[in-house]
Amino acid sequence: MNTVLNLADLEALAEQSLDAATFAYYAGGANDEVTLRENEAAWSRHRLRPRVMVDVSEVDASTTLLGTPVATPVGVAPAALNGLAHPDGEVATAGEAARAGVLFTTSTLSSRSMEDLAGLDGPRWFQLYTHHDRAITADLVARAAATGHRALVVTADRPVFGRREREIRAGFRWPSALGYGNFAPYADEHDMAAITAGLHGSLLTWEELDWLRGLTDLPLVLKGVLTGEDAAAACDHGVAGVWVSNHGGRQLDRTPATVDVLTEVVDAVAGRAEVYLDGGVRRGTDVMVALALGARAVFVGRPWLFALATGGREGLAHALALLHAEVEAAMALLGAPSVAHVRRAHLR
Amino acid sequence: MNTVLNLADLEALAEQSLDAATFAYYAGGANDEVTLRENEAAWSRHRLRPRVMVDVSEVDASTTLLGTPVATPVGVAPAALNGLAHPDGEVATAGEAARAGVLFTTSTLSSRSMEDLAGLDGPRWFQLYTHHDRAITADLVARAAATGHRALVVTADRPVFGRREREIRAGFRWPSALGYGNFAPYADEHDMAAITAGLHGSLLTWEELDWLRGLTDLPLVLKGVLTGEDAAAACDHGVAGVWVSNHGGRQLDRTPATVDVLTEVVDAVAGRAEVYLDGGVRRGTDVMVALALGARAVFVGRPWLFALATGGREGLAHALALLHAEVEAAMALLGAPSVAHVRRAHLR
Amino acid sequence: MNTVLNLADLEALAEQSLDAATFAYYAGGANDEVTLRENEAAWSRHRLRPRVMVDVSEVDASTTLLGTPVATPVGVAPAALNGLAHPDGEVATAGEAARAGVLFTTSTLSSRSMEDLAGLDGPRWFQLYTHHDRAITADLVARAAATGHRALVVTADRPVFGRREREIRAGFRWPSALGYGNFAPYADEHDMAAITAGLHGSLLTWEELDWLRGLTDLPLVLKGVLTGEDAAAACDHGVAGVWVSNHGGRQLDRTPATVDVLTEVVDAVAGRAEVYLDGGVRRGTDVMVALALGARAVFVGRPWLFALATGGREGLAHALALLHAEVEAAMALLGAPSVAHVRRAHLR
Amino acid sequence: MNTVLNLADLEALAEQSLDAATFAYYAGGANDEVTLRENEAAWSRHRLRPRVMVDVSEVDASTTLLGTPVATPVGVAPAALNGLAHPDGEVATAGEAARAGVLFTTSTLSSRSMEDLAGLDGPRWFQLYTHHDRAITADLVARAAATGHRALVVTADRPVFGRREREIRAGFRWPSALGYGNFAPYADEHDMAAITAGLHGSLLTWEELDWLRGLTDLPLVLKGVLTGEDAAAACDHGVAGVWVSNHGGRQLDRTPATVDVLTEVVDAVAGRAEVYLDGGVRRGTDVMVALALGARAVFVGRPWLFALATGGREGLAHALALLHAEVEAAMALLGAPSVAHVRRAHLR
Repeated sequence: MNTVLNLADLEALAEQSLDAATFAYYAGGANDEVTLRENEAAWSRHRLRPRVMVDVSEVDASTTLLGTPVATPVGVAPAALNGLAHPDGEVATAGEAARAGVLFTTSTLSSRSMEDLAGLDGPRWFQLYTHHDRAITADLVARAAATGHRALVVTADRPVFGRREREIRAGFRWPSALGYGNFAPYADEHDMAAITAGLHGSLLTWEELDWLRGLTDLPLVLKGVLTGEDAAAACDHGVAGVWVSNHGGRQLDRTPATVDVLTEVVDAVAGRAEVYLDGGVRRGTDVMVALALGARAVFVGRPWLFALATGGREGLAHALALLHAEVEAAMALLGAPSVAHVRRAHLR
Repeated sequence: MNTVLNLADLEALAEQSLDAATFAYYAGGANDEVTLRENEAAWSRHRLRPRVMVDVSEVDASTTLLGTPVATPVGVAPAALNGLAHPDGEVATAGEAARAGVLFTTSTLSSRSMEDLAGLDGPRWFQLYTHHDRAITADLVARAAATGHRALVVTADRPVFGRREREIRAGFRWPSALGYGNFAPYADEHDMAAITAGLHGSLLTWEELDWLRGLTDLPLVLKGVLTGEDAAAACDHGVAGVWVSNHGGRQLDRTPATVDVLTEVVDAVAGRAEVYLDGGVRRGTDVMVALALGARAVFVGRPWLFALATGGREGLAHALALLHAEVEAAMALLGAPSVAHVRRAHLR
Repeated sequence: MNTVLNLADLEALAEQSLDAATFAYYAGGANDEVTLRENEAAWSRHRLRPRVMVDVSEVDASTTLLGTPVATPVGVAPAALNGLAHPDGEVATAGEAARAGVLFTTSTLSSRSMEDLAGLDGPRWFQLYTHHDRAITADLVARAAATGHRALVVTADRPVFGRREREIRAGFRWPSALGYGNFAPYADEHDMAAITAGLHGSLLTWEELDWLRGLTDLPLVLKGVLTGEDAAAACDHGVAGVWVSNHGGRQLDRTPATVDVLTEVVDAVAGRAEVYLDGGVRRGTDVMVALALGARAVFVGRPWLFALATGGREGLAHALALLHAEVEAAMALLGAPSVAHVRRAHLR
Repeated sequence: MNTVLNLADLEALAEQSLDAATFAYYAGGANDEVTLRENEAAWSRHRLRPRVMVDVSEVDASTTLLGTPVATPVGVAPAALNGLAHPDGEVATAGEAARAGVLFTTSTLSSRSMEDLAGLDGPRWFQLYTHHDRAITADLVARAAATGHRALVVTADRPVFGRREREIRAGFRWPSALGYGNFAPYADEHDMAAITAGLHGSLLTWEELDWLRGLTDLPLVLKGVLTGEDAAAACDHGVAGVWVSNHGGRQLDRTPATVDVLTEVVDAVAGRAEVYLDGGVRRGTDVMVALALGARAVFVGRPWLFALATGGREGLAHALALLHAEVEAAMALLGAPSVAHVRRAHLR
C-alpha cells in the first residue's frame, strides 16, 4: 500500500481493482450526484484557526460514544454488502475496526450475519432498517442486543430507495436475498426477496420509533437527520444520539452537505443527545471541523470499503491508521491536546 | 429508450438525431446564452430540507390548475413548430400529454392547427401571440375557446424577436408561413408571411390586455413576467394566472433565472392569482423547489421535443413518466405525501 | 463579415489577421490581466429586470453628450496608433464614427494628426495627455479646439506606464516618435522621442487641471477615475464630465471592473457632471446596465480596432451597426422606448 | 533571464531545472495544498482603489523594520537548506539581499552557518526553532546576536512536522544532519540526527517565550500567528513584532490565506507591535494590499530560491529588482509617493 498516502487515494485504486458495476454501487450517489460531491467539497470550504504556544507533546484522540470508550472520534459507518469488497465481508471490516479501537456499525443489510461478528470484542452498534412486519423488526433488535451491539442506529432517510443512475448505467445487480446474512432465519430462498422488499421505511414514523424504544434497553440513535426540527423531535422522542446524514448522497439529491447543517442540528439538540455525522469525511482536518461545530464523532464509509477491496485487511488497517495519524497531527497543529480542547473558536 | 434515465439525457440524443439547424433552433438561446444556462444552473443551487419519520406509503402528485384537475404540477410549455420534431407535430405532443393527464399548452405558432387537437380530451390551454390586426387576434381567441382550451396564455415578452446567434450560425430557416397551422384561415400562401410578421408584441400593452379580457370568458394567464411590479399589475388587470418565464432564455439575455425571481413574483401576487414558472426544469427536485417557493405548477418545454424527436410518441411518454416518477420520489424523500405538503420550510 | 455576429467575434478574427505583436499590444492588459478579464466578466454578473406590456413600437437610442446630439450612448474610446490597424488610421475610424453619428475621441497619441480629422462633421472630443512642458500642452489644447473637438478628455491614470507583459513577451516595439501625428509641429525626428517621453502624467495634479480649465473654453472631462473621492474632487474642480476607466486594464492590475465602481462614482458626482465609462463593453445589454446605474454614455475601444483591422472601414461600419442594433433590441425587450426610460429598477 | 518577467515565471523554470524531489520540497505544501493555493489566490481577490492627480514624480519604497532602515517593505523569508538551490547557499541569498538593501532572515536550518554570513552588511534577522535542550537554544540565540542579527524570529507553528504528500511522492530525502550549518558546534556526525530531531516545537509555550525574552536584548518576533487571540497574547508577552504566517501552507492545511487574517491580527495588535506577513506574495500589488491592511512589511520565500536555482546570484538579483520595480510602479499608480501613504482606503 505504498502509494496510499490518504483516503482519497483509495477511490482511484478501487476504481481500477473492482468491477465497474460494484465500483458504481459503492461510489455512486443519487441522480446528478450534487449532494455526493457537496459532501466532500463542503469540508474544504472551512478554514481552521490554529492556536500556537500550546504544549502538545502529548495528544490524545480518544473519547467515549454513548459511554463506550473508543480510540478516536471516527467510526465505521454502516454499509451494506461488505462481501462485495472482501470474501470475509463484515468479519474483516469489523475485525480490523476492533483491533484499532474504532466503533463499528453493523448494517441490517450486511453480507455476513450479526452473529458472525459476536465474538469480536471491539465497540459495535447495529444499524436498523425497520421492516413492515414488526415481528421481524423486533427479532432483529433482540438479536442485535444479543450479539454485542451497544446501540441501535435507526435509519430514517430511506422511505423509498434513492435512484442512483450511475449504478443503473453500470448495470449493477443486487445479490439474491440469500446474500444478506441477517435474514436467513426468517425464510428460505424462495421468499427472501419479499422479505428484504419490506425493509423500506415508507411507514416509519415517530410512533414506530416510540414502539422501538419500548422494545429494547439499547439506546437509540436516529440516523438521516438533516433539519433542526427533526433533531429536536428525535430528542423529544427519547433518542440518545442524532446522526446527521444524507445517506452518503445516495437518497435525495440536492440535500445540503452534512457539515452545512451540523450547526443547525447541534443547536436544536441543545445537549440533550450526542450528535454524529457522516458524509465526505476524508481528512483529519475534516474531523476537526466536525468536532469544532459540536459533533461528538464522525463516521466514514466508502474509504474503508475501498481499502478493503484494494488492500485486504492490511489495507484497511493502513487506512484506519492513516486517518488516525491525521487526526492526531491536526490536533497538535491546532493546539488541542485532547478532543475536548477542539472548540468553535478553532474555526473561522 | 434504455439509455434515457433523465431529461438531460435527451438533449445529447437529440443533438445526434436532429439536423444541426433544427437542434440549434430548439436548444439555443439569445446572444451569449447566459440566461439559458442560468435557468438550469439556478435550480441546483437550492438545497432541500427533507423531513423524516413521515408516512409516505401513499404519495399523490395530482393538483388542479385554474380548477382543472391534472395528474402532476408539471405541464407542457408552449413551443412553436412541433412538426420539426415529429411528423404528427402537436397531435403527437398533446396526445401523449393527454394520456398522462398532463396539461398541454398549444402555441399560436404550432405546426398543426388547434382544430386538429380539438378531439383530445386532456386539459389544454392556448398560448396567444396577439396580432397587430385585432380582428385576427379576436378570431384566434374564439377558435381557442371553441377547440377546448380552458385558458388563454398571453405572451408578454416578445415585443421584438430575440436574437439567437446559435440559430444564425447553424443556418436555421423558419418555415414558410404555410407551416403554421393556425393561420390558414386568414390568408393564402402569398400574404402569409405578412400575417405572421404582425405577431410580434411591440404594441401589446395593459390596455390591450383589458380588451382581451372583455373579449372572452376564458381566464387569462400572463406569461413572461419577471418582476414583482408587472406581476402586481397583471393582477390589477384581472389575470387568473401569472407565468414567470424568460422565454427559455430566447429573448433578452442576462435576465435572471426564473427561479431566482419566483419569490418576488409570488409575494407581489399575494394569492390573487396562481403562479406558474418555466425555465430549465429538468428534475423532480426542481419541481419541489418551485412548489416550495410558491409556484402552483411548472412547465417544461425543450425536453418533450427532444424526446419526441428521438423516441417518437413512445419516447415522449417515457420522458413524461420519468419526470413524474422523479416528482413522486422527491415528495416521498421530502416527507410530503401531497403537493400541498411541500412548503417553504423544505428549502434552506 | 458574415461570421461576425457580435463584437466578441472580432477579437478572434483579429488575432488571426494581425501580427502577434500588434495583437498583443491592442488586446493585452497589465501584469496578470486580472482587471482586463474582470472588465468584461463583471457585466455578465448583472441581471436585467425587463418590464412588459410597454409600447415599444418606436425605440430611440439617441441622446446628447455635453449638449452634443449623438445617435447612441456608445462612443469610440480614445486609442493610440490606429494606424497599426488600417493605413488610414484615425481618418478611417473617425470617418465611420461620423457616418454613424457616433462620438469619436481622438487620442493624443493618434497615428494621424488631429488636423487630418478636421474636415469630418461628426461629434468629436480630444483625449489629452498633458506634457511636462506646459507650452506643448497648451498648444495641443488650442489645436484641439481649432480642429473641431468639443471637449477635452484629460487622462488621469497614467502617471507611469502600465507594464503589459503580454506585449513584452510578444516583442511589441513602439513606433518611432514620427509615428505620432500630433507631434510633428514640435520637433524634428531627432528629439521626438524626448517629447513623447514627456507625456506621462507623474506631475499631473489638481492644480494642473485648474490651469487647463483656465486655458480653454472647452469643457473638461476627467478620464481614469475609479473612486468616489476623486469623482467628487473632479466636480469641485469644475469638470463637466467624469469618465470611469481603468485604461482598459492596461495600467494598474487588480483595480475593479469599471462597472463595479460606477454606482460609487455616480453617487459622488450627484448630478454635478455627466458620467461616462469604458471597460469591457461588448453587448447592448452591457450598455443597458451602465445606463441603469447612472452613466450617460459608455465608450468602446478595442472592438472597433479589431473590426478595422479585419474588415476595414466596412468592417467597422458593420461593428458599429451591430452594437447599435443590440442597444435598440435591448431597450425594446426592457420596455424602454428611450434611453431616459432606462432606470435603476431595470437591474436586480 | 530574459523570459522572467515576474516572480510566477520562476516556479515553472525551477520545475524544469531542479530535480523533481527538490522541487517538490520547495514548492509543495501540506496534504491537499488547499492553503498553499489559497495563499496566492487570496491576493487576487482584493481590488485596489487608485487615487489620481497626485504628484508621484518621486516614489520612495523605503521603510524601517524594528528601527532598521530597509530599501523596501519586502523581505526574504526564512527558508531551510538554501544549499539545495545554490552551492553557496545562504551566502548567496543573503549576499544579494544585502546588495539590494533587503532584510534577510536566516533560518535555524540553513545550509550554511550563521557565522558564514557575519561579514555581510545588510540587515538580518535570525529565525529560531527552539530546541528541547534549552542550552542549545540559548547558544543559538547568543550566536545569532554575535553574528549581526538584529531580531529573533521565533517560529510558533511547528509543534509537529507538517505532512507534505507531494514531497513523499517525489521521494525527497532530508540531508544528513551535517547539512545544517548551525549545528556543527553541538555534536559530531553520529548524534546530529538526534539534535535536529529535538527542534520541533511541541513544548514551545508562552512560558518558554518569556524565558527567551529574558535571555537576550534582541527584540522578539513571533512567527506563525493566525489569530487575533494569539497576536494579542504575543503582545502581552512583550514581542516587538507579530508575523502572520501559515508556514507557506506547509504545516496545517485548511488554515486561511494569510492575507485573510491580516486585519484580525492588526486589530488585535492595536499598534503594540509591528505586523509582518508571508504567504503567496508574488506581485507588487500584493504588497500594496498588505500595507493597506496594516502590515509593515511582507516576506517572500520560494521565489527567491527558484531564482537562485535557475539563474544563480544574477537571477536572484533580477528577481529582487523585478519585485522592487513592481512595488514602485504600484505605488505610483495608486497615488502613494511613500509607503506611509498606502492606506486602508486604497482597498475596496
